[in-house]
Amino acid sequence: MVRMGIRAAVAGASGYAGGEIVRILAGHPEFEIGAVTAGANAGTPLGARQPHLRPLADRILDETTPDVLAGHDAVFLALPHGQSAAIAERLGDDVLVVDCGADFRLADPADWERYYGTPHAGTWPYGLPELPGHRERLRGARRIAVPGCYPTAVLLALFPAFAAGLAEPDVVVVAASGTSGAGRALKPHLLGSEVMGSVSAYGVGGVHRHTPEMAQGLSAVAGEPVTVSFTPTLAPMSRGILATCTAKARPGVTAETLRAAYERAYADEPFVGLLPEGTWPATAMTLGANTALVQTALDERAGRLVVVAAIDNLVKGTAGGAVQSANIALGLPEELGLTTIGVSP
Amino acid sequence: MVRMGIRAAVAGASGYAGGEIVRILAGHPEFEIGAVTAGANAGTPLGARQPHLRPLADRILDETTPDVLAGHDAVFLALPHGQSAAIAERLGDDVLVVDCGADFRLADPADWERYYGTPHAGTWPYGLPELPGHRERLRGARRIAVPGCYPTAVLLALFPAFAAGLAEPDVVVVAASGTSGAGRALKPHLLGSEVMGSVSAYGVGGVHRHTPEMAQGLSAVAGEPVTVSFTPTLAPMSRGILATCTAKARPGVTAETLRAAYERAYADEPFVGLLPEGTWPATAMTLGANTALVQTALDERAGRLVVVAAIDNLVKGTAGGAVQSANIALGLPEELGLTTIGVSP
Amino acid sequence: MVRMGIRAAVAGASGYAGGEIVRILAGHPEFEIGAVTAGANAGTPLGARQPHLRPLADRILDETTPDVLAGHDAVFLALPHGQSAAIAERLGDDVLVVDCGADFRLADPADWERYYGTPHAGTWPYGLPELPGHRERLRGARRIAVPGCYPTAVLLALFPAFAAGLAEPDVVVVAASGTSGAGRALKPHLLGSEVMGSVSAYGVGGVHRHTPEMAQGLSAVAGEPVTVSFTPTLAPMSRGILATCTAKARPGVTAETLRAAYERAYADEPFVGLLPEGTWPATAMTLGANTALVQTALDERAGRLVVVAAIDNLVKGTAGGAVQSANIALGLPEELGLTTIGVSP
Amino acid sequence: MVRMGIRAAVAGASGYAGGEIVRILAGHPEFEIGAVTAGANAGTPLGARQPHLRPLADRILDETTPDVLAGHDAVFLALPHGQSAAIAERLGDDVLVVDCGADFRLADPADWERYYGTPHAGTWPYGLPELPGHRERLRGARRIAVPGCYPTAVLLALFPAFAAGLAEPDVVVVAASGTSGAGRALKPHLLGSEVMGSVSAYGVGGVHRHTPEMAQGLSAVAGEPVTVSFTPTLAPMSRGILATCTAKARPGVTAETLRAAYERAYADEPFVGLLPEGTWPATAMTLGANTALVQTALDERAGRLVVVAAIDNLVKGTAGGAVQSANIALGLPEELGLTTIGVSP
Repeated sequence: MVRMGIRAAVAGASGYAGGEIVRILAGHPEFEIGAVTAGANAGTPLGARQPHLRPLADRILDETTPDVLAGHDAVFLALPHGQSAAIAERLGDDVLVVDCGADFRLADPADWERYYGTPHAGTWPYGLPELPGHRERLRGARRIAVPGCYPTAVLLALFPAFAAGLAEPDVVVVAASGTSGAGRALKPHLLGSEVMGSVSAYGVGGVHRHTPEMAQGLSAVAGEPVTVSFTPTLAPMSRGILATCTAKARPGVTAETLRAAYERAYADEPFVGLLPEGTWPATAMTLGANTALVQTALDERAGRLVVVAAIDNLVKGTAGGAVQSANIALGLPEELGLTTIGVSP
Repeated sequence: MVRMGIRAAVAGASGYAGGEIVRILAGHPEFEIGAVTAGANAGTPLGARQPHLRPLADRILDETTPDVLAGHDAVFLALPHGQSAAIAERLGDDVLVVDCGADFRLADPADWERYYGTPHAGTWPYGLPELPGHRERLRGARRIAVPGCYPTAVLLALFPAFAAGLAEPDVVVVAASGTSGAGRALKPHLLGSEVMGSVSAYGVGGVHRHTPEMAQGLSAVAGEPVTVSFTPTLAPMSRGILATCTAKARPGVTAETLRAAYERAYADEPFVGLLPEGTWPATAMTLGANTALVQTALDERAGRLVVVAAIDNLVKGTAGGAVQSANIALGLPEELGLTTIGVSP
Repeated sequence: MVRMGIRAAVAGASGYAGGEIVRILAGHPEFEIGAVTAGANAGTPLGARQPHLRPLADRILDETTPDVLAGHDAVFLALPHGQSAAIAERLGDDVLVVDCGADFRLADPADWERYYGTPHAGTWPYGLPELPGHRERLRGARRIAVPGCYPTAVLLALFPAFAAGLAEPDVVVVAASGTSGAGRALKPHLLGSEVMGSVSAYGVGGVHRHTPEMAQGLSAVAGEPVTVSFTPTLAPMSRGILATCTAKARPGVTAETLRAAYERAYADEPFVGLLPEGTWPATAMTLGANTALVQTALDERAGRLVVVAAIDNLVKGTAGGAVQSANIALGLPEELGLTTIGVSP
Repeated sequence: MVRMGIRAAVAGASGYAGGEIVRILAGHPEFEIGAVTAGANAGTPLGARQPHLRPLADRILDETTPDVLAGHDAVFLALPHGQSAAIAERLGDDVLVVDCGADFRLADPADWERYYGTPHAGTWPYGLPELPGHRERLRGARRIAVPGCYPTAVLLALFPAFAAGLAEPDVVVVAASGTSGAGRALKPHLLGSEVMGSVSAYGVGGVHRHTPEMAQGLSAVAGEPVTVSFTPTLAPMSRGILATCTAKARPGVTAETLRAAYERAYADEPFVGLLPEGTWPATAMTLGANTALVQTALDERAGRLVVVAAIDNLVKGTAGGAVQSANIALGLPEELGLTTIGVSP
């Protein structure tokens, strides 16, 4: 009997997120890469856009259509927002559809419409297994909404504090992202000449689309509405997110109770590392790995807890998180095909 | 009659801050560079450490001693903390001493001892002319404490909000700095291999020494104690600070009243630019210039005002700010020898 | 009597080269900036594209037309190749036209057509004053062809060896350039995510358009045809060119005769620095400065002389070189408005 | 029966090369990591210096002594030059010793002494399996000298041309390296502030220690002495080498014969990729992968062939090459535990 892999298609394989899904699936012992599709790049070899994916360089990018994607066991979507629903409804209920776009992340239609300006498509199980109760919901799921890259970092940084009742529900987050988080679109401010040697702010004042996603996740854990002030910044690196997250500490919280809450939350998590005391996260520690690294502090003068998390935005923040959730959904070992060892320096 | 320049010595000229002072003074029409001094590098040519300072490359670095520094009209100190007092007391009261170190920045001895661990040396006029009342205090001064690089960015970002009574006295700041802010000391985490491609946090939880300096400046403007939660991060660039600063907005504050407060505060300031609406600061906009660029937002959902400021940490954040204050102290035009045009891209 | 500056227009002011011309002219004591023009960006404020040029941020970009450019004493053209001739012929013969494009650099129409594929427009005095005889030709000139950025570095690196008869006429050059050398056009390989962390080759095999310009300049100095094998590479930095240039040494050449030739050639040149022995050029030493830094070595085993030169591609390689030549043409001191002090680190 | 892995020790595991060996061995299905050792860092956890190696972070670094290294099946040495011989002679002849240092690379004692200044230790089989005849010599070997990072790139770029008799024996190489190639030693010119935004030359004029290694390898293939003019440069990135290599083409060589020689040479090589025509190597294509990417051109005007190769200096250039050769020596599949998929962008 020939053992067959799980056939997976990757839609949007010419972009950064899609390329990263292909990279991870290519090293996964259970997946077999079927169709790789693209929009404007359809018809060209994958290697022309993703020359680092050497063994698959000669694969021709198909057009992203339901017909091309049908006939796979799993379909990973790395498409611009708004395209996933039409594709997913054409794929069978038994097909695992993992959407790296935003379309099915938000439960509140008003939030969706406020931030995305289009009708709400619905809500799928949210692919952050570390959140309380989420791993269970992902088991056997056939539709998964992969979290945004910033929310991944922020939720992993803050949910243990809220789960333990240590933080006031008013959060401030400032995060730095590498440029791959902005995708491969040709925009003037993403030119190398502009980004090298420069850190810049954007989407300030609560307007970034990942803001309601953070609030949704934290509120669920806290059991009360949590407001989030989120400021994203662009840093001169290709990959990585460093999220600095702070909230007022509830009365009686000490550095020890804070750390203990995180030790409890992450004792058995394969992909989240609470760093030794005195060590603070750097994004380079996570490059290429499906790891979130976290450290906590209590600022007694300011009465605030501060938690910093680092991830690779394309791995734990997108493609690695997607495969981790897919592993769970398909009943595979959660860690299969995912590394916790970064490429550094 | 031969017109004589103001003879200036630069102590610590082999470091990054000292080199930048030399760079600026070399283009200043009224200063004439006298002694350039160093510690371990004394006896070697300036060009060996600062090859970009071509016209002065053959100058030999003297040892940093009061005797060498005496006999100048102005002495700029870019020394490790703790060395300024002993030197300053050996220089005449008529000599302008501009200290880029921290020794004379904090008014509260308890703050000093808590953060620096040594006896308090005293307090000198604080060289941030844009702060209310400070320009006047600098006129004719012969001792100036140059602000820290982070406090420069943060105070310029936030004081107008406090001056106008728009913000609650509980501030959160997350700032990214280029590596030159850490100086030229050989530390493993400052190696190029470590910093490139990585953003990292350090000094988290209220322990960074610039924290009390921010609180001191903001409290003075607010007329009440302001607490500051400050998290510095290291970004993969040589220069620049981007400070994201936020506080709860007082009731009734609107985006318009917020912006109006900044327009008022900075209408006549030559070195602070309130960017056009829709444009957010990037550190590259300020590279090499004595400029702080500022933008404001009101996040109504989170009830917070967010102000972002960008500076070149070595110019407006250190050497340029030092020369600006020296200009005022000496009765020269404040803008003399200082540019507001950055080098970009 | 009101002293009038030389009124200068800058065409292409929204690009990197044009922005740099504006930056330098803004600090030049004799020039006064008139029209700043653009193509697609006409009608928008200069600051929207060049936010670092603070004092001129509100200037509106005019359309690049002969009518707009007429009425200035000097016109600096920073346009795509092929547009300069039509503009220049509409400007009076008494107007100084300084072309940063390639149109008038090559004397040989066959070379032009081979590399640019369009009819040859003619030849203007070549704006590299350091080349033998060129300073004289620039005096009083009203048309100047600014050299390409790579040729500037390579000619300064190699002409003294050929002038002194030390090198065989078969040159190998490999140069690394920052991304600003490729301009501001939106091309996928220029995205920050692509260029950061990567050095790449392009235009290999003698096809880069700057190749015949190098051969032309070296052949003129050598008095015989010099062939040039030129390979450009793209480095992860915004600015700078480092050119490594080598040729077989003629019999009898020693490290001393080699160095002596460069000492002679550059003894009185304000903008070329022969570094102290043991120091090799780094592009950062020249950032923002109109400086070329050069160092020589003789590789006795390989029988080759190796000369390395560093420049800022936008300053000495484009805008600074343009202003230097304009100074000469207009009878101003050659160094006016140009600095030899870089911004570093 | 419990299946036992091959027990491997890594000496110098706190450095960049040693850390990379650990990274690769940790993902290798046949190796089991035994002792990890260090010099000054002995006694501290591996994670303090290599936080990206999460699963091994708690391993304590032993001191690098023969006693600690004994008792392993394989010992990988990533030590400063000059330390390998004393260790190797204390390890049994049946232990595989893979030396990433230079000690056993050069066959000619005069070359060794000229470039390293110490007595010659001997010569071990050279770990570049792609070179003609080398794979055979590595089979069953118990001592392997891993090539230098630059020679790896240069030999892979040029040996096919010499094997096919297409090139004159006078080679010019200019290569750019990321800073990790210089190791983790604290040197002023390796500070992030110095390297970011800058490309610099070093070791110019034939003095770099990798020069005789290149000449040795090419001469062996060419069957006649090949001279090498080699200039290394430092680029602002952590990893990667781009080597531009050129030699006069022998009469009759065409672009087609040149390419055909490389197609032949690399048709069956798992770790060398000849890129499609029109695509030039970028180091980012190889990050984290044991891949060398190569492209060729014939410059007819200059009469030169130009070959550009890109590698990750720490993988194919050091640790990956070491494991590849170890696989061969131990009779394992050559590709085991090594990826050809890079991490990009």
